[in-house]
Amino acid sequence: MTDPHVVGAGMIDFGELKDQSFDDLLEEAYLTLLENVDKGADPSDIDAAWYGTIDIANEGASGASVAHATGLFETPITRVENACATGSDAFRNAVQAVKAGDAEVALVIGGEKMTDSTEGLIASAALERLWRGRGVTMPAYFGMRATRHMEVYETTREQIAEVSVKNHENGTKYPHAHQQFECSVDDVKESPTVSYPLNLYDCCPVTDGACAVLVTSEERAHEFTEDPIRVAGYGLAADTFQRGNEAALTNFPATRQASSQAYERSGYGPQDIDVAEVHDCFSITELITYEDLGFCEEGKGGQFVDEGKPHLDGDQPVNPSGGLLSKGHPIGATGVAQIAEIFEQLRGEAGDVQVDDPQVGLQHNIGIGRNATGAVSCVNILERP
Amino acid sequence: MTDPHVVGAGMIDFGELKDQSFDDLLEEAYLTLLENVDKGADPSDIDAAWYGTIDIANEGASGASVAHATGLFETPITRVENACATGSDAFRNAVQAVKAGDAEVALVIGGEKMTDSTEGLIASAALERLWRGRGVTMPAYFGMRATRHMEVYETTREQIAEVSVKNHENGTKYPHAHQQFECSVDDVKESPTVSYPLNLYDCCPVTDGACAVLVTSEERAHEFTEDPIRVAGYGLAADTFQRGNEAALTNFPATRQASSQAYERSGYGPQDIDVAEVHDCFSITELITYEDLGFCEEGKGGQFVDEGKPHLDGDQPVNPSGGLLSKGHPIGATGVAQIAEIFEQLRGEAGDVQVDDPQVGLQHNIGIGRNATGAVSCVNILERP
Repeated sequence: MTDPHVVGAGMIDFGELKDQSFDDLLEEAYLTLLENVDKGADPSDIDAAWYGTIDIANEGASGASVAHATGLFETPITRVENACATGSDAFRNAVQAVKAGDAEVALVIGGEKMTDSTEGLIASAALERLWRGRGVTMPAYFGMRATRHMEVYETTREQIAEVSVKNHENGTKYPHAHQQFECSVDDVKESPTVSYPLNLYDCCPVTDGACAVLVTSEERAHEFTEDPIRVAGYGLAADTFQRGNEAALTNFPATRQASSQAYERSGYGPQDIDVAEVHDCFSITELITYEDLGFCEEGKGGQFVDEGKPHLDGDQPVNPSGGLLSKGHPIGATGVAQIAEIFEQLRGEAGDVQVDDPQVGLQHNIGIGRNATGAVSCVNILERP
Repeated sequence: MTDPHVVGAGMIDFGELKDQSFDDLLEEAYLTLLENVDKGADPSDIDAAWYGTIDIANEGASGASVAHATGLFETPITRVENACATGSDAFRNAVQAVKAGDAEVALVIGGEKMTDSTEGLIASAALERLWRGRGVTMPAYFGMRATRHMEVYETTREQIAEVSVKNHENGTKYPHAHQQFECSVDDVKESPTVSYPLNLYDCCPVTDGACAVLVTSEERAHEFTEDPIRVAGYGLAADTFQRGNEAALTNFPATRQASSQAYERSGYGPQDIDVAEVHDCFSITELITYEDLGFCEEGKGGQFVDEGKPHLDGDQPVNPSGGLLSKGHPIGATGVAQIAEIFEQLRGEAGDVQVDDPQVGLQHNIGIGRNATGAVSCVNILERP
């Protein structure tokens, strides 16, 4: 049984990419990946691919889309979808195939053309039709989580805003981020209300993007780079929203379950994580995730960010890339882009957002099916071998 | 490295299941599977699940849908989509995870509520919007394949109809088939024209359904049954439609590539296949597939069926279950249902459609993305150990 390693990443500039088609985004990420591999990589090296998209614009489902964008017609290409955890679960499936020996070199590629969606913004997406029609849209639901966390744990509005301030600051230093501007706590508090207490700067933007990474066996990793990054563990779990269960509004059981699987598989615990890319679709999501991942005690997420711990120079930097809040959230690409950032961080190649000498990194998504009542979470842990 | 084995299958009656929700179908298939496992299976045995659906009714995407239908909230559940090959590719991913040792016991579940689709019938689905608007719907496209095959290989209209006659006859003996009626070559030729030369009885119906199978390691297989079926090989490939390339209209390059991968991996060749479930969305599709899988020479598909070779009592029985033409084609369920049938055939439990003492079975799908210009094919080979 081999240990899968990441040996390359191809990240494109996220944004409102209206002059590029969905295929263009996938192709750019793929070609960027091939170019970026230290010792070079060739299409003929690739045994199989996993492709993440929720196909929000209804233009790119099935593996054949990636075959068209890359030319890999004779290569097995599986499309994986798992709501906002789509990209990270595509990665997890590629890792399993490499472990199985069925693919020695696997491509993971994710993309989304959010601005082509006829279904509109993230703001109006998701949750059952029943609830959506009653105003329980995505920001409304996360707004309820925020007010509940404030009520139960005395988390302050300012602490929640600090997540956005941190991530926007990081985003100004990350070259591929969509929205590159700094903002203060007051700026966040004064930005237009979306759903109380969440304002515009508490919400991730609507962003197009794609990203690709290459996963290979331990035996073959050194054909591609002298500096591969080992995949140490991963987990995936589902959950209902548990509407009516007020206690549950303060945490995400799926994250707890998925991270517990990943910690167990890797042998690492929360205290070992030197850098993390986590799912900050809204500021409150990241704050709760500190707790669910065990970076701090339950109810102490506000204090954790208040003390600067998740900052670039803090004890446990979170979202050095600017997170979804600044970088953007092209759903199928998001998890893959987080893996790409952890890969670069662990190789010490993260430029202006490099954290201090990380050995172990964690990547995390939660996801909400468009019309499903459940949530999923996927967690992957990478390490410098 | 373990050899994955199928140890149980849960097939429900396919049909226009208007009194059941999509979740109901998944739940019924899951519970049927648990009941059917020889020595019993418990939800706590299941380490991970792969879930196939194209979500045609926009009501069941993401793994959380299966968590709701089964209660497996703490279990990793990945949704796989690969057009009409969705179910068979979900199976392939589960097999890889079991080989990797990441799941010792994996659930594969697929379902589709075709009659809930607002997008209408298979007849109007698929192919690029550009082509669809010009009348190149699914039956039109397969009609072109039929006329081309007739032109190039002197295949007759009657030979094409014989595929439908055979599959409808098998379907009357298969308890879960949707449309259980016999028809003659004349009946097929006199049924209403859909797209020349294909008539109504040359086309699969619009069918709801779900199916589940259980895959486990060789080591654990005997906890579930004394009669497990080994997964010997599998393949997956993509293709364009190559419109304008007239020669290509007479075969499916993706099937050739996927089956070649599966043959190589399994060590078996076309002549070793004792029973097959193949993709007969239209009668002509199965006829061409005989050739692509190597059951007969290129251009000899008409003769192959004329000589009775794919009949229940023929040399190489194809679609004993009645195929998509009679059983129906609930897309995400189709490949899983084919695996279930091969499993039962190899165990000698296929009742009135049992073929004579098969040792090796093959399952095949082709798929066309709803808005993709490409086709995919997935092939799995199973054997009695």
